[in-house]
Amino acid sequence: MSAYIQLEDKFRDIGRLQDIEAVASWDEACLMPRGGARGRGESMAALAGLIHEKCSDPEIGELLNRARGQRDLSDWQLANLMNIERAWTEAIALPGELVRAYTHATVHAEQVWREARAANDWQMVAPALDTVVNLARQRADALAAQMGLSRYDALLDSYEADLRVDHIQPLFSELKAYLPGLLDRVLGAQAEPLPLVGPFPVEQQRALCEDAMHVLGFDFERGRFDVSHHPFCGGVPDDTRITTRYDERSFLESLMAICHETGHALYQQGLPVAWRNQPVGESLGAAVHESQSLLMELQVCRSREFIEFMAPKIRTHFAQAVSPQWSSDNLYAHATRVARGYIRVDADEITYPLHVILRFEMEQLLLNGELAVKDLPDAWDSSMKHTLGLSTAGNDADGCMQDVHWFAGLFGYFPTYTLGAVGAAQWFAAAQAECPEIKPEIALGNLEPLLTWLRRSIHDQGRKQSMQALLTQVTGETLNTRAFKAHLESRYLS
Amino acid sequence: MSAYIQLEDKFRDIGRLQDIEAVASWDEACLMPRGGARGRGESMAALAGLIHEKCSDPEIGELLNRARGQRDLSDWQLANLMNIERAWTEAIALPGELVRAYTHATVHAEQVWREARAANDWQMVAPALDTVVNLARQRADALAAQMGLSRYDALLDSYEADLRVDHIQPLFSELKAYLPGLLDRVLGAQAEPLPLVGPFPVEQQRALCEDAMHVLGFDFERGRFDVSHHPFCGGVPDDTRITTRYDERSFLESLMAICHETGHALYQQGLPVAWRNQPVGESLGAAVHESQSLLMELQVCRSREFIEFMAPKIRTHFAQAVSPQWSSDNLYAHATRVARGYIRVDADEITYPLHVILRFEMEQLLLNGELAVKDLPDAWDSSMKHTLGLSTAGNDADGCMQDVHWFAGLFGYFPTYTLGAVGAAQWFAAAQAECPEIKPEIALGNLEPLLTWLRRSIHDQGRKQSMQALLTQVTGETLNTRAFKAHLESRYLS
Repeated sequence: MSAYIQLEDKFRDIGRLQDIEAVASWDEACLMPRGGARGRGESMAALAGLIHEKCSDPEIGELLNRARGQRDLSDWQLANLMNIERAWTEAIALPGELVRAYTHATVHAEQVWREARAANDWQMVAPALDTVVNLARQRADALAAQMGLSRYDALLDSYEADLRVDHIQPLFSELKAYLPGLLDRVLGAQAEPLPLVGPFPVEQQRALCEDAMHVLGFDFERGRFDVSHHPFCGGVPDDTRITTRYDERSFLESLMAICHETGHALYQQGLPVAWRNQPVGESLGAAVHESQSLLMELQVCRSREFIEFMAPKIRTHFAQAVSPQWSSDNLYAHATRVARGYIRVDADEITYPLHVILRFEMEQLLLNGELAVKDLPDAWDSSMKHTLGLSTAGNDADGCMQDVHWFAGLFGYFPTYTLGAVGAAQWFAAAQAECPEIKPEIALGNLEPLLTWLRRSIHDQGRKQSMQALLTQVTGETLNTRAFKAHLESRYLS
Repeated sequence: MSAYIQLEDKFRDIGRLQDIEAVASWDEACLMPRGGARGRGESMAALAGLIHEKCSDPEIGELLNRARGQRDLSDWQLANLMNIERAWTEAIALPGELVRAYTHATVHAEQVWREARAANDWQMVAPALDTVVNLARQRADALAAQMGLSRYDALLDSYEADLRVDHIQPLFSELKAYLPGLLDRVLGAQAEPLPLVGPFPVEQQRALCEDAMHVLGFDFERGRFDVSHHPFCGGVPDDTRITTRYDERSFLESLMAICHETGHALYQQGLPVAWRNQPVGESLGAAVHESQSLLMELQVCRSREFIEFMAPKIRTHFAQAVSPQWSSDNLYAHATRVARGYIRVDADEITYPLHVILRFEMEQLLLNGELAVKDLPDAWDSSMKHTLGLSTAGNDADGCMQDVHWFAGLFGYFPTYTLGAVGAAQWFAAAQAECPEIKPEIALGNLEPLLTWLRRSIHDQGRKQSMQALLTQVTGETLNTRAFKAHLESRYLS
């Protein structure tokens, strides 16, 4: 058996264990009773430890050395080999002790954060975050040393292969200069939509969401739709599970959450069957995944065409006659409403990047030691005042405590949200240029042309090449803001 | 670190992986979409293979040799060591190739069986079963050689430690002689209950089942209640999950299934906290587990006292006034109705053991080669005619194809059902002798005295000693039919 084939065997086993991990994680988020938390935590740690052990097996290093010399590998096999090497390099970079310390610190900080945020008590959680930041630096340094990267680039790389600060910085500078002016113009012209008054019973919201999932092309034979505290997409390609949550006062949030998660799901369900449980058969990183969810949510589902198609279905589900409130115009106005706000996850597509850029800048300062954890609330307040004209002084719950990411140790993750939004516009523009029928068919509720394009161009490519390489192949350009800006202007200024 | 402590560490890790396995199995039975089956099968096999690898680690053998000489071990530690040795012995007994062949053959036979049973087509599945029987012999021989037991005893031992044909044979002979006469007397005296006419909506059945679970003491903080194709109890001690299924034409089946599964669940939730994820902290085998479910179902929930307590709740859930149909007398008549029938899982507590004894006898003949698979339908028909006066000629779907067990490779399992029923009566008699308030309190819906006794006497004992040793300690006798016969006579002849 060639060295390469031996590597495939080893990683197929690892992939299968990761699939079990994915199901158990989904269960933890959706179903596990409280009393099971402690034991589940221990079991998940045991499984993760085992997977890490297998990924960092020294034999993999030897096999990699031999496989690199093989002349008989196909493109896909070569790409798989590169991804295997990548997984191995990351696995051996971190000493077990640091991994355990990091897990321990972030689990603790996350627990304290829950309480502290609810009580709006920054002092309660600051020490725990300080510990996490210190360990995050060590962790980033260990990764950086192994990969020959800078500290922050090493973190970025772990969320999206080959992504660098140098790709992000110019793009974010451009948006930082561009968006505030756009925001003023949009807010100046925007009319308040007529209120949609509930209650909207959960069962009807659920049925509406399922309708939308069918329209978008979710494969229910290979997936599920459930409820969880925060909407997410989990599971594995042939058992892809998305969730939402319901608030009876409003239905648009659950519907749009499900459109978003269906975007993730379609990507996962569309990964190349021939490469199941091999690294090259997995999805690309967080930025590309987010580009797929945001393509579905922002480009497709919040479009006038889609809202017009869905409006009669929405009215039927909630037993409403045609009226000014329930017109597609008014529904569209709700789906595209822009407002300055404190909370990233509630933000519209114009202000969202500003929330992200703030975090991107601040987490680099935190990691470099230029910003101390104790000074975070003030820095946040000042940045929010500057960016959106909102002060978070005395309101850290809606300021620097609003997101779990840093407490959970996810430094370097925030930028992927906005890279996803920018990428979504770039993919969608390329898709329409190639297949002009895509948009007219969406207006008829037929997503097939778009899905076919996505499958062929993106989903079926797995991890054969990096995000930037795939973007260049498919759209002719590396990631840039042109399509994103054109999209915003067309949607909000015309 | 002492050899014993090293063994504890190794088995704690194994236990945690087994917990993940339990959750993934539950998910497979309850939630997994069809398209996920193939990948899940591969993932579960990978995890099982890994657990087997860890259980059969040669280092465990060396540690066992050293730990056996340790003089500093407590009773519980010694018992744990014995259980570890047992797990290791079983793990090393089977060559990996045979394990894989057996898995493959049984998965295949089970698939074919589903179709064949639906089509009442014995010829369709006979070859697959023949393969399973041949491999089951090899498997039993490998276990027998390692453990120094006879072929069938080796299988029994894998379901209930130290259980032997010699324990079962006299007990079953006695029942075989005793039950037919009793059955005739009961059938002669039994009046037909008034019919309970549905439909009984699923939501109301579900609420009734939950009520019963609360009364019986199920800990919802450490467990769940869901729906599956066949009722079962799965999960882990701090996340115990039971299921039932509903038929709107009748509610007693789902209710009694849930009483049964709650018995399993109470055992699992009651296992000793101090020994989580150690072999000695697990439940005893299938016979003891079944004794706990049947104690709850047969001794408690089908008793006149419990039915009288539940009757008003049942009427409330289905919005029924007091009437002859909905009287506790009539409900009790339904819960204790006796009838000769083809199907084991539908059988009452008098005919059930006869179904089991037939299988016990027949599977020994199959394994010994005295009965060929091709002759199974005739043998079944003749035995059923002899035992219950019912012919299954031409109706193998309700004959030798009715149970999945043999197709799934579970030879040696059937006897545990009846040993469980016999044990349930023996435990319950001992409990009442020790705590006379148990039954009067059940009549008031207070299960606390019984549960306290079960926790202390059985659940909290884990696997500290074998079934027979525990029975002797708690009831003063090894397993015997005295209490079971007394129970049947008191319930059905007085």
